Amino acid sequence: MCSLPVPREPLRRVAVTGGTHGNEMSGVYLARHWLHAPAELQRASFSAVPVLANPAATSGCRRYVDHDLNRTFTSSFLNSRPTPDDPYEVTRARELNQLLGPKASGQAFDFVLDLHNTTANMGTCLIAKSSHEVFAMHLCRHLQLQYPELSCQVFLYQRSGEESYNLDSVAKNGLGLELGPQPQGVLRADIFSRMRTLVATVLDFIELFNQGTAFPAFEMEAYRPVGVVDFPRTEAGHLAGTVHPQLQDRDFQPLQPGAPIFQMFSGEDLLYEGESTVYPVFINEAAYYEKGVAFVQTEKFTFTVPAMPALTPAPSPAS
Amino acid sequence: MCSLPVPREPLRRVAVTGGTHGNEMSGVYLARHWLHAPAELQRASFSAVPVLANPAATSGCRRYVDHDLNRTFTSSFLNSRPTPDDPYEVTRARELNQLLGPKASGQAFDFVLDLHNTTANMGTCLIAKSSHEVFAMHLCRHLQLQYPELSCQVFLYQRSGEESYNLDSVAKNGLGLELGPQPQGVLRADIFSRMRTLVATVLDFIELFNQGTAFPAFEMEAYRPVGVVDFPRTEAGHLAGTVHPQLQDRDFQPLQPGAPIFQMFSGEDLLYEGESTVYPVFINEAAYYEKGVAFVQTEKFTFTVPAMPALTPAPSPAS
Repeated sequence: MCSLPVPREPLRRVAVTGGTHGNEMSGVYLARHWLHAPAELQRASFSAVPVLANPAATSGCRRYVDHDLNRTFTSSFLNSRPTPDDPYEVTRARELNQLLGPKASGQAFDFVLDLHNTTANMGTCLIAKSSHEVFAMHLCRHLQLQYPELSCQVFLYQRSGEESYNLDSVAKNGLGLELGPQPQGVLRADIFSRMRTLVATVLDFIELFNQGTAFPAFEMEAYRPVGVVDFPRTEAGHLAGTVHPQLQDRDFQPLQPGAPIFQMFSGEDLLYEGESTVYPVFINEAAYYEKGVAFVQTEKFTFTVPAMPALTPAPSPAS
Repeated sequence: MCSLPVPREPLRRVAVTGGTHGNEMSGVYLARHWLHAPAELQRASFSAVPVLANPAATSGCRRYVDHDLNRTFTSSFLNSRPTPDDPYEVTRARELNQLLGPKASGQAFDFVLDLHNTTANMGTCLIAKSSHEVFAMHLCRHLQLQYPELSCQVFLYQRSGEESYNLDSVAKNGLGLELGPQPQGVLRADIFSRMRTLVATVLDFIELFNQGTAFPAFEMEAYRPVGVVDFPRTEAGHLAGTVHPQLQDRDFQPLQPGAPIFQMFSGEDLLYEGESTVYPVFINEAAYYEKGVAFVQTEKFTFTVPAMPALTPAPSPAS
């Protein structure tokens, strides 16, 4: 396995970003709250910076204004020559890349935690790029051990050969929290509190690492995408059916060949015709209708995460 | 009680409107489906007309474009002189008033059934203007008796002296179906099927009436608004807390004085300081954040609905 190097220095430049999608309210209101009361994000060795990532979309309670911000952190968007006609989110991605990056540079932030909600029944989902992100994997493990009752699931989004495109990819290490189900534009107290607790524990973990804690190797189970399935549609592109009641709300549960996946308006059922069991996620996510995604098919796999050694103390100035 | 006269003729001009709010997907997709397959709306004595009420908002998956369409059917909007600068929904309300009204005229449709979803946990809610709408009350009773497992609740929205403003008020008789919880922009199969079944039963009831069925008097329990409660807010107008977990999802359940209603981001609880028990509805409805409504306070009351006599057969041409 080709693991990425673990940090050799304390993580001191840390950000927590909310409102990357302007209608996912837990992160919107946590970021707004912390901008006025940042003490909650302080630890002994660092203070995390709260960032309201997409202020214009947040102001309009929309996912985005011109372009999905969380698909905009690619080299082609970040490095192209700015023009007055650039979509709002392209300009904003460049600003965030200046603030938190530049992406893939030594000056980039050490860690970005990005806060999201989904309308899907995904519970507590931890989103990282790949199993090679050793620091993020240890963080996920820490959250799983701290909160066994939350059944934190790990989703590793990057497909082979694909450039990373999301906000936390501008930092050296990152993680996304994806909590649901919560309607767009609604702030539920239960999900708000859960996200707040998880953020605190993420910061506690970074503090543990910074203070010289070592973390042993372990086996991890995670999900990675193998494809997407669109809704059945009419010639005009409208839905011709929707997610079957037997699939709705069953994120991360096995879908067997032959099981119903869509209920057509005409009354019939459409069945899953794949040849192997998959684990659907983002089932009936509101924001994905326009992306042609009724659900994302994932496969479950396990892998070994190598030990993360304790930081060695920096040489004292006298040595 | 000042009951409105019951129809003395069969109801032949009937419409079912969906997409009055463009992101409430059950009605959007039912209307779209029926526009291509209207046979489902036919009965022996009439054929209901499907109408996609707000096509522009529906196309953008938004509640509205310029102005909430379901607050636009007042005499000031409907009767003012059209100008090129009119908000989209004002123009559209005038079109619908031409199609289904004119409001309060003899030419108006006999019945409009308007389809809605809410993010609140309101189950199956039947919305009518007032207890004086005898035909609508008998229809509500019929739905309650047909589907006891749905616990259909009746919400009578009109406050004393207030002009009616919603779409179905253009017709001589009307009812709104408000089904939830469903996120904006999401089409759940369970709620879609439930709404479809309820619409069919509404049309069956009209057919029963048209065929000469008499309906006896009965006692009805319903809810009517007595006030609204906004979220706690910061000076900037943003939320300072959200609906308390002990209130969330408890639509139509009694709220006692002293019970918690909001959980502040600072950690404290805000309590209900009213002097009497109320029954909150539309708790944490996404569309009402901008209206300054965290929930609507209602009171429960009972009243007698008078019998609705059978239609007398029209004199035959030979008589």
